[in-house]
Amino acid sequence: MTDSLLQHHQYGKRAIRLVHVTRDGDRHELTDLDVDVTLTGEFEETYLTGANAGVLPTDSQKNTVYAFARQHGVQRIEDFALLLARHFVRAHETVKRARIGISRHHWDRITPQHSFVRSEGELRTVTVTHDAGKTWVVGGLTGLRLLNSTGSEFKDFPRDEYTTLPEAGDRILATSVSAGWRYEGTRGDWDAWHGKIRAALVTAFTETYSRSLQQTLYAMGEKALAACPAIAEIRLALPNQHHIAVDLSPFGLDNPNSVFVATEQPYGLIEGALMREGAVGADAAWW
Amino acid sequence: MTDSLLQHHQYGKRAIRLVHVTRDGDRHELTDLDVDVTLTGEFEETYLTGANAGVLPTDSQKNTVYAFARQHGVQRIEDFALLLARHFVRAHETVKRARIGISRHHWDRITPQHSFVRSEGELRTVTVTHDAGKTWVVGGLTGLRLLNSTGSEFKDFPRDEYTTLPEAGDRILATSVSAGWRYEGTRGDWDAWHGKIRAALVTAFTETYSRSLQQTLYAMGEKALAACPAIAEIRLALPNQHHIAVDLSPFGLDNPNSVFVATEQPYGLIEGALMREGAVGADAAWW
Amino acid sequence: MTDSLLQHHQYGKRAIRLVHVTRDGDRHELTDLDVDVTLTGEFEETYLTGANAGVLPTDSQKNTVYAFARQHGVQRIEDFALLLARHFVRAHETVKRARIGISRHHWDRITPQHSFVRSEGELRTVTVTHDAGKTWVVGGLTGLRLLNSTGSEFKDFPRDEYTTLPEAGDRILATSVSAGWRYEGTRGDWDAWHGKIRAALVTAFTETYSRSLQQTLYAMGEKALAACPAIAEIRLALPNQHHIAVDLSPFGLDNPNSVFVATEQPYGLIEGALMREGAVGADAAWW
Amino acid sequence: MTDSLLQHHQYGKRAIRLVHVTRDGDRHELTDLDVDVTLTGEFEETYLTGANAGVLPTDSQKNTVYAFARQHGVQRIEDFALLLARHFVRAHETVKRARIGISRHHWDRITPQHSFVRSEGELRTVTVTHDAGKTWVVGGLTGLRLLNSTGSEFKDFPRDEYTTLPEAGDRILATSVSAGWRYEGTRGDWDAWHGKIRAALVTAFTETYSRSLQQTLYAMGEKALAACPAIAEIRLALPNQHHIAVDLSPFGLDNPNSVFVATEQPYGLIEGALMREGAVGADAAWW
Repeated sequence: MTDSLLQHHQYGKRAIRLVHVTRDGDRHELTDLDVDVTLTGEFEETYLTGANAGVLPTDSQKNTVYAFARQHGVQRIEDFALLLARHFVRAHETVKRARIGISRHHWDRITPQHSFVRSEGELRTVTVTHDAGKTWVVGGLTGLRLLNSTGSEFKDFPRDEYTTLPEAGDRILATSVSAGWRYEGTRGDWDAWHGKIRAALVTAFTETYSRSLQQTLYAMGEKALAACPAIAEIRLALPNQHHIAVDLSPFGLDNPNSVFVATEQPYGLIEGALMREGAVGADAAWW
Repeated sequence: MTDSLLQHHQYGKRAIRLVHVTRDGDRHELTDLDVDVTLTGEFEETYLTGANAGVLPTDSQKNTVYAFARQHGVQRIEDFALLLARHFVRAHETVKRARIGISRHHWDRITPQHSFVRSEGELRTVTVTHDAGKTWVVGGLTGLRLLNSTGSEFKDFPRDEYTTLPEAGDRILATSVSAGWRYEGTRGDWDAWHGKIRAALVTAFTETYSRSLQQTLYAMGEKALAACPAIAEIRLALPNQHHIAVDLSPFGLDNPNSVFVATEQPYGLIEGALMREGAVGADAAWW
Repeated sequence: MTDSLLQHHQYGKRAIRLVHVTRDGDRHELTDLDVDVTLTGEFEETYLTGANAGVLPTDSQKNTVYAFARQHGVQRIEDFALLLARHFVRAHETVKRARIGISRHHWDRITPQHSFVRSEGELRTVTVTHDAGKTWVVGGLTGLRLLNSTGSEFKDFPRDEYTTLPEAGDRILATSVSAGWRYEGTRGDWDAWHGKIRAALVTAFTETYSRSLQQTLYAMGEKALAACPAIAEIRLALPNQHHIAVDLSPFGLDNPNSVFVATEQPYGLIEGALMREGAVGADAAWW
Repeated sequence: MTDSLLQHHQYGKRAIRLVHVTRDGDRHELTDLDVDVTLTGEFEETYLTGANAGVLPTDSQKNTVYAFARQHGVQRIEDFALLLARHFVRAHETVKRARIGISRHHWDRITPQHSFVRSEGELRTVTVTHDAGKTWVVGGLTGLRLLNSTGSEFKDFPRDEYTTLPEAGDRILATSVSAGWRYEGTRGDWDAWHGKIRAALVTAFTETYSRSLQQTLYAMGEKALAACPAIAEIRLALPNQHHIAVDLSPFGLDNPNSVFVATEQPYGLIEGALMREGAVGADAAWW
């Protein structure tokens, strides 16, 4: 059994739950994060022989996240991810590349002081990838559920022998947006940029008269690139959360797009990646 | 095998997904519900022999929900549940009691017309139970996640041989509120009442200096009863979503309630039921 | 705000994850449990004033579970739950009733020594309720997914104006069994009894020609009561996991009960409770 | 907004639930699948203008899965995925590449005829990618949960300033195996090959004295490559499902690796890809 070659390998700690409180007198700031650490480097020995001399324990990675939160605070998740990624590469010779993924839960303030209510669903995300030569910051969001109750059609598609879908001149369009966008640099006004891109995505979704979810996807990506010159590309995955108008004719009732059953499965999935003209790709930023 | 007696039985359709759109010119209203139907009655025969003459199919129950949405609209979930519960008892001789449970998902309006974003987590709920003699309406909510980053302690508890928990003079208090409250009547200003009760729950949570989550629970229930005279009782279940301050001393760092790990399990669960003085209990409203 | 009465209250620790290993030379036994503790008693003070003198911390409850696992081992979940329930009532004057719920995950042995593979889905459960006067043991199981690909029909049901369901002369019957059964005593051959009851449930499901899921439920309960004289009653909840034959006629194909879509929602839910003739009810054992 | 370029795009139907029954007299065979379809091709127009002339509806993709199940049966998921992938490319000029992902749920036979019990957790998987020039078959499994209650250590790792983890001379090693392996060809004895590879993975896990989960991963991959010459490479992702020995010393008890808390988060994640010496990589087979 000596003819196996180890091609790729990586390891790290996932689902590190960090809640950070900053106190400014009676006024607290709350940050609620899930942090993932993934390290790539010279770890072949432990795979081949179990020798762990180069393997920073995932427990230490977790400790580092908590200690850094205390030492440096947690302001923008983009900066916190950069800090951590650079640390692991700088501090450990065997680590050649570090990837930090962070998802931020939203808490809305109830009182000016220290009470909060969590807003579920949408998460702000970042993935920072750092090695000796290069650093990539991919911002994003997931779980943003949008719905237009009109302004969407799906027609003029090809019909093969397995096609039974009627043309739809007016349908509900609903999705849960997952988006990632790659910033050109590693410093910036992350909050403002995130806000502009999110607003562009939402606006494009609501303002596009949609002939297909693909068209809506492209409009969202295009508008995001236009709204924030700091990003070079954006990738979107949009599940088509089908709302099917119920056939009420057996009950002597019409259904003028009034009563729908929302279905979970199966669902369409539409994906697309847009790049700014002239920008250079960077697949390593994504996986 | 003749000595088995059928003591209780009920059946129905669960997880009926109903999305309803009302159009007022360009302005749409969106209602997104999960509906459960449970019927109790003279269904022994089908259990004992498989004779189905009295068993309204659960598929018909589902159809009824969709047809009623078209015929009557879906304004308040309390009224829609009442309508359905009464229908099943009135229309079917074998049905002696009907229970309708509805959970409403929240969608916020993005545009004045027909675009919405879903706000996950918190659901507005109702359970209506109706039989020939009586009708009960239990309003409620689930998934309301609240957090105070200070203003909570837990001290002076008994210490047995298995107690290692240190006293906490200042801790994070976090929970996900599940609450149900029984209205005295079957007509009312459901939206206003729900709003008042929800506000009372939130205010009590934020304003109570908490010596235990039990104390907070009672304050929440008391304030809800005071805020809405239309309810006779309220039941609350509050998981204690523990946030544990990380011991950073191995890294030479203090942790002045700044860095926490949020844990999912195990968790405390605190439950309590409060009734208005002079009110009469009604267990049948609850299960 | 003085007119609120505290009607009911209870508290405890949920989702205590306990894995226990017993070593007999090279041969290990593995037990994998989720444990819930719920205590009822004289805890009004903490609700009303936040005085915690009578409130055993849920953290201590968790510690007790782990310490008892070490001191007494974990053989049968029924005995372990009894031990814990009695301890909390005996050791703490304020605790008037303790309920211990345990779910056991199944691990199959891969080697005779110390390697195991987890069998997901079905859990063995127990709920023990203990107060000064009485002790109840409710055994059970959840997540047992059964399917008959024929031998099931659903016909002769009433048709109202909302009924569109065709009669089914041959359908798939599928469910995920949740069952609880109350033992008369507190000592017994728990493993053998559990095995007999489970076998009776499975046999009744497979051998009953089913005219309704209700009929199958009753047959399962009846057979379980017959198989194990040590139980006084059994309660079953059976979701009807609908498998819908796909209409292939648009593609010029028949579908002789060959191709089905398995649906998650909506689903029927059939519930029933059977008691042995002459047995005395004990609702307190169940909630 | 004319400077956006569409770099990549694909679409398809996900979570198509297919249950197929084959009848051989009284004896039925049951197949329970989740099917995903993803198509790549000349679909730019719909993204840019909403023109759908080239866009086979995802609803038609779903119909195709059901119709093919009837026309061709569902024997091996590998063959069924190949059939579907080839169909979409052959039948539709705009489709340049099709990927079919299938997960198979396991049902064990209870009777020789038509009764089954579902075995949850582990799924058998396949991903077939087909374009004009090439076809790849990646078999696999997910959700296989394995545990060794001894025979595992983790020592001699580097200690930085954030390391507090003690060396472990004897620990529980537990994981949930996700594995994918690329076959060299497109015909084969899929069931036998899958069985051999699965057995190799399990045997390597149980027989390896583990100095790190990485070492175990490599041993598993190596043994799988040795067991089945038909595969060119294998990729493994192994979460380290930490079982932490509880500190019972506050209660005057020792804990000789007897009582553990099983934790869900955070968790380590160990990944590795092994290729047979001399084999040629094929990243397109994987994503």
